[in-house]
Amino acid sequence: MIRAAALRLKDHARKTPFLNSFFVDDIAGRRVWIKTEALQHTGSFKFRGGWSAVSALSPEALNAGVVAFSSGNHAQGVALAARLHGTHAVIIMPSDAPKLKVNNTLSLGAEVILYDRETEDRQAIGQELAQKRGLTLIKPYDEPNVIAGQGTCGLEISAQAADFGIWQADVLVCCGGGGLTAGIALALEAEAPSMKVRPVEPVNFDDVTRSLAIGVRQTNTHLGGSICDAIVTPTPGELTFPIMRRLCGPGIVVSEIDCLRAMSVAFTRFKVVLEPGGAIALAAALYHGDQISGDDVICVASGGNVDAAIFARAISDYPCS
Amino acid sequence: MIRAAALRLKDHARKTPFLNSFFVDDIAGRRVWIKTEALQHTGSFKFRGGWSAVSALSPEALNAGVVAFSSGNHAQGVALAARLHGTHAVIIMPSDAPKLKVNNTLSLGAEVILYDRETEDRQAIGQELAQKRGLTLIKPYDEPNVIAGQGTCGLEISAQAADFGIWQADVLVCCGGGGLTAGIALALEAEAPSMKVRPVEPVNFDDVTRSLAIGVRQTNTHLGGSICDAIVTPTPGELTFPIMRRLCGPGIVVSEIDCLRAMSVAFTRFKVVLEPGGAIALAAALYHGDQISGDDVICVASGGNVDAAIFARAISDYPCS
Repeated sequence: MIRAAALRLKDHARKTPFLNSFFVDDIAGRRVWIKTEALQHTGSFKFRGGWSAVSALSPEALNAGVVAFSSGNHAQGVALAARLHGTHAVIIMPSDAPKLKVNNTLSLGAEVILYDRETEDRQAIGQELAQKRGLTLIKPYDEPNVIAGQGTCGLEISAQAADFGIWQADVLVCCGGGGLTAGIALALEAEAPSMKVRPVEPVNFDDVTRSLAIGVRQTNTHLGGSICDAIVTPTPGELTFPIMRRLCGPGIVVSEIDCLRAMSVAFTRFKVVLEPGGAIALAAALYHGDQISGDDVICVASGGNVDAAIFARAISDYPCS
Repeated sequence: MIRAAALRLKDHARKTPFLNSFFVDDIAGRRVWIKTEALQHTGSFKFRGGWSAVSALSPEALNAGVVAFSSGNHAQGVALAARLHGTHAVIIMPSDAPKLKVNNTLSLGAEVILYDRETEDRQAIGQELAQKRGLTLIKPYDEPNVIAGQGTCGLEISAQAADFGIWQADVLVCCGGGGLTAGIALALEAEAPSMKVRPVEPVNFDDVTRSLAIGVRQTNTHLGGSICDAIVTPTPGELTFPIMRRLCGPGIVVSEIDCLRAMSVAFTRFKVVLEPGGAIALAAALYHGDQISGDDVICVASGGNVDAAIFARAISDYPCS
């Protein structure tokens, strides 16, 4: 399914850069590579899954339109994929999502419905809407074609790493529901089986890390209030968790401040804009190197949709020199 | 020479991304493409010219070491190229160069000598040092192998544009001494002769634009005091000007504020960090569209070595929504 998704994404999604920096290698004590998904269309890897799911619909379903719930990156990915396929998208977004993400989703022609992250169930809203208006619900991670789309990032990682002679590495992936993590893990199982995927999560939202440690899906106490808005989800996905349990190494938990510091490093050393959740894998490589092994570490820099105020704070308060 | 430089650069310089954004196309009223040289090693295209020149040295000259003068980007390009070739680099930098550029050049192992941009002649300092210590002077633009190295960016532009079916476009290039502009113009003359290179300069530092209009090299009154530090040079190069006069269209002159606005657009829409001088071609495409013709415009986003304070000011004071 990942290879089929890669064929559908060809000439539509970008093959994103695989970058290193001599300066960053010095900080981390090993070679650090970033897979720069912030440079994907709509500023995050989510365009892969959105395009994969929308492009797999039957002509009738495509014509009827799609609905998705998302804190903003999946929203934009689905909205752009729907627009480029000439169909309608309804996006259910939390009312505390970054303004930029809401505005972009609207600008991409989608209809946006806001909900309260703490009190309302987005899945229920989405399913009701899908039924009422005949729309296809494209879930953000518990959806095979979405996982397959995100997995195309893993196919690129294995090929790009091989170009630098890298066959063995921890691959750090920012993890919300686990669509990207599971997709990359499946791709690497086939293409680079000596690589080990490691989910990375923010402090207080470490459901996947705890679930992997115990072997049973755990939930987070809070569902909002993190600057890593993109990767705050209640619990690992039903489809994604068994994949992660089978293929992934232990999770790594990172503080919000370390995410801001990593954003500053990405600004100074890679010239790439990352949002807090998109910088968390790089933060793990930079500041939790003791939990990683090997000469190379690969960090998925998953998205760059960040409001100017937070970005200005990161680069001003945590200068990288 | 450009094709030979491309062979020497293969596997050492990055093939940088060629990006567009639906949002930016809407602002500009035509398709806007950026050639993202900020993602080149050392954060600017200058690594191309530095590597090209250093890799062309005889073993004896390479062993003796190199000297360069630069406001910071050529400095880093030459310093890294020298380091990777295992030789010594002395870099002469203006005392008002961004701290980041000075620190990076030092971190890359180079010896840095500071001079006063308003009162001292960097070329004289460089030539004296070259003679005294047996170093090869690698000039920032009036040097055939440097121009050839920068020209490899033009080879990539023609190939990447062709992938999107683009054969005809204005190619906007931020212009200081003209090494990048002349190199790209020569590459496109051979590979995409329907493209027209247009130099872009900051207000008050428009020596190339005025020189092209009159047909004779003009000089700038001031030699400092611009946030576009990377592209402030006294006058067009002796070697580069005849090339630009033969091949380039009229120059475009852009205000500093428009550079800051374009940096904010690049932050929000491309997730790429640009320095003021590196954003000036994009600024011309966004805010001087009346001076450009055609359905597509290609902007070289030449560098991203900017201090956090200026970047924070650009994205905070000139929000892009």
